[in-house]
Amino acid sequence: MSGTLRLGIAGLGTVGVGVVKIIRREAALLTARTGTEITISAVSARTRDKDRGVSLSGYDWEDDPVRLATRDDVDVFVELMGGSDGPAKAATEAALKAGKDVVTANKAMLAVHGQALAELAEAQGRVIRYEAAVAGGIPVIKSLVEGLAGNEITRVMGVMNGTCNYILTRMEEAGLPYETVFEEANQLGYLEADPELDVGGIDAGHKLAILAAAAFGTRVNFDAIELEGIGRLTIEDIRAAGDMGYRIKLLGVARMTGRGLEQRMSPCLVPMTSPLGQLRGGTNMVVLEGKAVEQIVLRGPGAGEGPTASAVMADVCDIARGIRLPVFGQPATTLADAVPARSVTPAAYYLRMTLQDKPGALAKVAAVLGEAGVSINRMRQYDHEGDGAPVLIVTHRTSRMALDEALAAMDRTGVVDGTPVAIRIEEV
Amino acid sequence: MSGTLRLGIAGLGTVGVGVVKIIRREAALLTARTGTEITISAVSARTRDKDRGVSLSGYDWEDDPVRLATRDDVDVFVELMGGSDGPAKAATEAALKAGKDVVTANKAMLAVHGQALAELAEAQGRVIRYEAAVAGGIPVIKSLVEGLAGNEITRVMGVMNGTCNYILTRMEEAGLPYETVFEEANQLGYLEADPELDVGGIDAGHKLAILAAAAFGTRVNFDAIELEGIGRLTIEDIRAAGDMGYRIKLLGVARMTGRGLEQRMSPCLVPMTSPLGQLRGGTNMVVLEGKAVEQIVLRGPGAGEGPTASAVMADVCDIARGIRLPVFGQPATTLADAVPARSVTPAAYYLRMTLQDKPGALAKVAAVLGEAGVSINRMRQYDHEGDGAPVLIVTHRTSRMALDEALAAMDRTGVVDGTPVAIRIEEV
Repeated sequence: MSGTLRLGIAGLGTVGVGVVKIIRREAALLTARTGTEITISAVSARTRDKDRGVSLSGYDWEDDPVRLATRDDVDVFVELMGGSDGPAKAATEAALKAGKDVVTANKAMLAVHGQALAELAEAQGRVIRYEAAVAGGIPVIKSLVEGLAGNEITRVMGVMNGTCNYILTRMEEAGLPYETVFEEANQLGYLEADPELDVGGIDAGHKLAILAAAAFGTRVNFDAIELEGIGRLTIEDIRAAGDMGYRIKLLGVARMTGRGLEQRMSPCLVPMTSPLGQLRGGTNMVVLEGKAVEQIVLRGPGAGEGPTASAVMADVCDIARGIRLPVFGQPATTLADAVPARSVTPAAYYLRMTLQDKPGALAKVAAVLGEAGVSINRMRQYDHEGDGAPVLIVTHRTSRMALDEALAAMDRTGVVDGTPVAIRIEEV
Repeated sequence: MSGTLRLGIAGLGTVGVGVVKIIRREAALLTARTGTEITISAVSARTRDKDRGVSLSGYDWEDDPVRLATRDDVDVFVELMGGSDGPAKAATEAALKAGKDVVTANKAMLAVHGQALAELAEAQGRVIRYEAAVAGGIPVIKSLVEGLAGNEITRVMGVMNGTCNYILTRMEEAGLPYETVFEEANQLGYLEADPELDVGGIDAGHKLAILAAAAFGTRVNFDAIELEGIGRLTIEDIRAAGDMGYRIKLLGVARMTGRGLEQRMSPCLVPMTSPLGQLRGGTNMVVLEGKAVEQIVLRGPGAGEGPTASAVMADVCDIARGIRLPVFGQPATTLADAVPARSVTPAAYYLRMTLQDKPGALAKVAAVLGEAGVSINRMRQYDHEGDGAPVLIVTHRTSRMALDEALAAMDRTGVVDGTPVAIRIEEV
């Protein structure tokens, strides 16, 4: 045994408690595997007096995470507080400056400040590890940065917000509208305090930004993500997609193109028979594609005490074993500043619109699509009661630019009620 | 850049050529990621004069892999020859003794000599890496040994022979008998020179033995695997399983039980809707289960030039990055010598038998099952022409011991023609 690795843990919510439990329960196993005794010197959280279901009596208490992060008896600062700024960022910076390594589950902090933090860490000769920040228990960062190191990565995709996938699955299975299922999820405590983080795609977007940086050797750029949530999806969309053999997922896609880095987090149709299409409920899935390896699919729990703590501990064990890599796989100062490219990769699209009950309405829509160079693969007009005829169109592969042109022209025809829904069909 | 890592590659079949191609094509990327220039000093293969579709003119040629492995200008010996003994083992040992690290895709060698080679490597302060030996391009060894290091592993499972999965998929989809599809696979060049390696489960068994050692911290013990191939499966079995919502897979399962280490590589029924049940064709899948992480599923190509070379290069990059771990995750001298346990975990079973057309035959079968404590969940007797009535039974969960007792008693009733087929239904 080569020594002891001493942790300071800030944040004792679900994940923090999970980490403490693993360290207590698996002490012998961790030592056998890492050759190191992994101990906890001190912990910190907002509230001290609270029964967390695990004894903390052996550890010092710090009210201030910055003090915790800089203690002499802490080798690794484990940041599990969350939030892109505030105490999490302050303590992380303090830890790095004090020569500590950092393990964090904080996707927001890395998506927003990843580049600066990576540069600081590497200037200090320290590592930041963040397996738990993306797709919970799935070892996706390790698989990508190390397991596929011989590959030029061509595309990464993921369903990385379990709450959204739960909502979409439940809508489909129970035939319930979005609002009802959203309320259910809220009652069940599945939603973040600010639900927009989940259903607006922000949380999943944070994860995609981190994944893209590690995949393409680019500076993390959350602001460049085309972000669209699931709030506009209706049960009719889900049913219509199902009729045509697709499921709708909040899917993150990052792809390096000749015109720059495409990053999207938005609802997409995927074939029902594909691994992504088969994914039900709160489970996460990440798809990694590389020139040599073709396609790897990773599936597992995206949240929860045990799975997220498992990812944190993988990082701790790596540090204990002397595994030290640049934060995003190559030195932060060498990461490229990729040009953001908006949906340049052509795709087929699913369109749903309501046509006014006028003769020739459908012909006008078909005409504007044709004029924009968007050809129609399938079209269905549904039987309807009351005003307006629901129409579904699946296009052939087209550029997003041509599609947007067609949608604008459609608006000018005056036969379409409201704004059509357009959902990309991602080729998986 | 901290220097150069010089490879000696023995074996220039599909995988070796793939490795050479990646090193030539991705030189800049590999250097950016590892901070090291990865070069090839020399290569070796059985035949020198052969067009392999890639230029080897920049590399020295060695006829003798042992000479290659011990060259002064080789830092890492890349063993891609295959075979458990012979030149592969001799050259690997020579490399380790000469102070070289080893990267290998050789599952047979590690399944048979893994413990001795690991002890040799660690005594020499060297590493052996073998990501390519298990499930091709899937980074499963890394996910298990590093990504799940905080977990007590409870079960590992895998479909790890693409040829068998291709045969079973094709039988189902085309409704063809085993012999016909076997011949097709042979024509397509999917089968090893000795087909028993594939269809007898030996190749997949080698992989399971390695996976189990890395999962449970035990000495690799291929001889302890309960091995059963796919040769007895009929199209009727596949159809009957399908009727009941299952698919048949050649599934490897390793599990640590209170009575020892269970290792099985055998046909199993899995629910059609599970990720394993959804797996079609030549793709591989590994399921890793741990106390904290619950369940991780990894899916990807199990063979082929690019995917397997990707795994080899992951190992090479790890060495270039200074990632050094014991061969099976903890020092070889600390690996436990697990007691082999034969199917102690209870399961439901699928039984297929042919009953003689005698009154009371079915009652006799039901009676012997009951006497052995095996209770029946579902039973079907099929309409038939000619002699003997095909009967399918799905039992409730039972021990394999009770089932074997029932099968022996069934034989003694004299109403069953031939030997019943018994296939485990693995709970996934």
